[in-house]
Amino acid sequence: MGRTAESESGSELELEPGTVFLVGSGPGDPDLLTVKAKRLLESADVVLHDKLPGPEIIEMLPEDRREDVGKRAGGERTPQSEINERLVELAREGKSVVRLKGGDSFVFGRGGEEAEHLAAHEIPFEVVPAVTSAIAAPAVAGIPVTHRDHASSVSFVTGHEDPTKAESSVDWDALAATGGTIVVLMGVGRLPDYTAALREAGMAPETPVALVERGTWPGQRVATGTLETIVDVRDEKDISPPAVTVIGDVAGTREPVVEFIRNEYGEAADGGAGGDR
Amino acid sequence: MGRTAESESGSELELEPGTVFLVGSGPGDPDLLTVKAKRLLESADVVLHDKLPGPEIIEMLPEDRREDVGKRAGGERTPQSEINERLVELAREGKSVVRLKGGDSFVFGRGGEEAEHLAAHEIPFEVVPAVTSAIAAPAVAGIPVTHRDHASSVSFVTGHEDPTKAESSVDWDALAATGGTIVVLMGVGRLPDYTAALREAGMAPETPVALVERGTWPGQRVATGTLETIVDVRDEKDISPPAVTVIGDVAGTREPVVEFIRNEYGEAADGGAGGDR
Repeated sequence: MGRTAESESGSELELEPGTVFLVGSGPGDPDLLTVKAKRLLESADVVLHDKLPGPEIIEMLPEDRREDVGKRAGGERTPQSEINERLVELAREGKSVVRLKGGDSFVFGRGGEEAEHLAAHEIPFEVVPAVTSAIAAPAVAGIPVTHRDHASSVSFVTGHEDPTKAESSVDWDALAATGGTIVVLMGVGRLPDYTAALREAGMAPETPVALVERGTWPGQRVATGTLETIVDVRDEKDISPPAVTVIGDVAGTREPVVEFIRNEYGEAADGGAGGDR
Repeated sequence: MGRTAESESGSELELEPGTVFLVGSGPGDPDLLTVKAKRLLESADVVLHDKLPGPEIIEMLPEDRREDVGKRAGGERTPQSEINERLVELAREGKSVVRLKGGDSFVFGRGGEEAEHLAAHEIPFEVVPAVTSAIAAPAVAGIPVTHRDHASSVSFVTGHEDPTKAESSVDWDALAATGGTIVVLMGVGRLPDYTAALREAGMAPETPVALVERGTWPGQRVATGTLETIVDVRDEKDISPPAVTVIGDVAGTREPVVEFIRNEYGEAADGGAGGDR
């Protein structure tokens, strides 16, 4: 308990007993962990996680200091309230606790709710921001979410909500009207619904769209099309979660650069854009 | 030239001669560099940078392997075309080259243009995504950019554009209509313009707004108010660039948690929210 970790920047970071660290794991490549996240994972007394950080990062966690709070034995998701209570319980035992989330904890990661619960129970906490998949998955595929010639804003939403429901809190009409890039996280399943909603909102059917499956993971795949064709492309290529959807002209900037992109993620320069658009 | 760096995840990363790495530095805290960015900064033949990564990260760069391509002797900015040409020139000399940007290269960082220039000159490149200040600065101040109870989308724009100009490509009406969080990067100077634009677009004057100055840097400061009061708050507290503006109900979630936030950035738990809202 309360080990001391040497900060690589020279200062000393005390892993204070009874502190919770809300840490994002980034998009999945362990090399895209922050220096701080990596150090905390190596030195915390206990790490609470689910499967979303991805296999490579989960494998890094020492088995005797991690707790899987994702799916339970029955297969259903552990309720957020139970996770909140466990964080408080461990902190009150005097442990330094990492709550590890895929991507960034504060971008569709329920980190805000966890922070509120900890504060309400007077538990000190630190937020450790991370690389979000919403930016990183498109980036390593060769797609900048903003570009001076193509998009002066970018909006992030999740695809978990049903856009055909009247009570949907995502305003697809307004998102279409921004004229900027739209990035949908966890958006494979409802792709038909929101592409239809965006076309009804007046977006051109030929608007470029890209799907990045398993972004920064081994076996990353990219599929490209348009608002009109992307559902068929998804089905033909059998694109499955986890994946990020990029909608807007920036998705069309990949094709001229993809041949020169180097990384260790998927099929090198898969050129998927060529045949599909 | 062409040194080999040992990957901390076990694989070996070859710094191939003649490759350009488009690397984001994150928000400024060296501990929020990615593991990969840190390794590349330590091992690349040359690092091209400006001042935006912040003093702590600039100081890490070995003087004999860095080139400042920010402001020139006369005080004006180095044209992007010159930076593009220098990247090609160094790569053709067989060097491994890091192009280091503040935040993420592909979020208002002109990384897309650099990628296009490199591909057009057949230079291989890798994109190394980073923690964006748009998420990290609010996060360490206790503000999640999305929250189940408050915001189901988040949009990023820059404050560099003049919203009163007819040719402004940012549609503030549409951004207001999304109902989600709006984060403005580099938005201190034009704060009066776009807060007025958002009020004219129908956003409530009591909408919470937070300014995070020097997010994750030593001496970080936070100032909070509403769409109606934030310009006065900025002036009273003399908030200066670099700063991030967060507009939306999430900015109001900071106050109940700020007392329990631990980090090494600014005035600990400055409680600035209390008096200003």
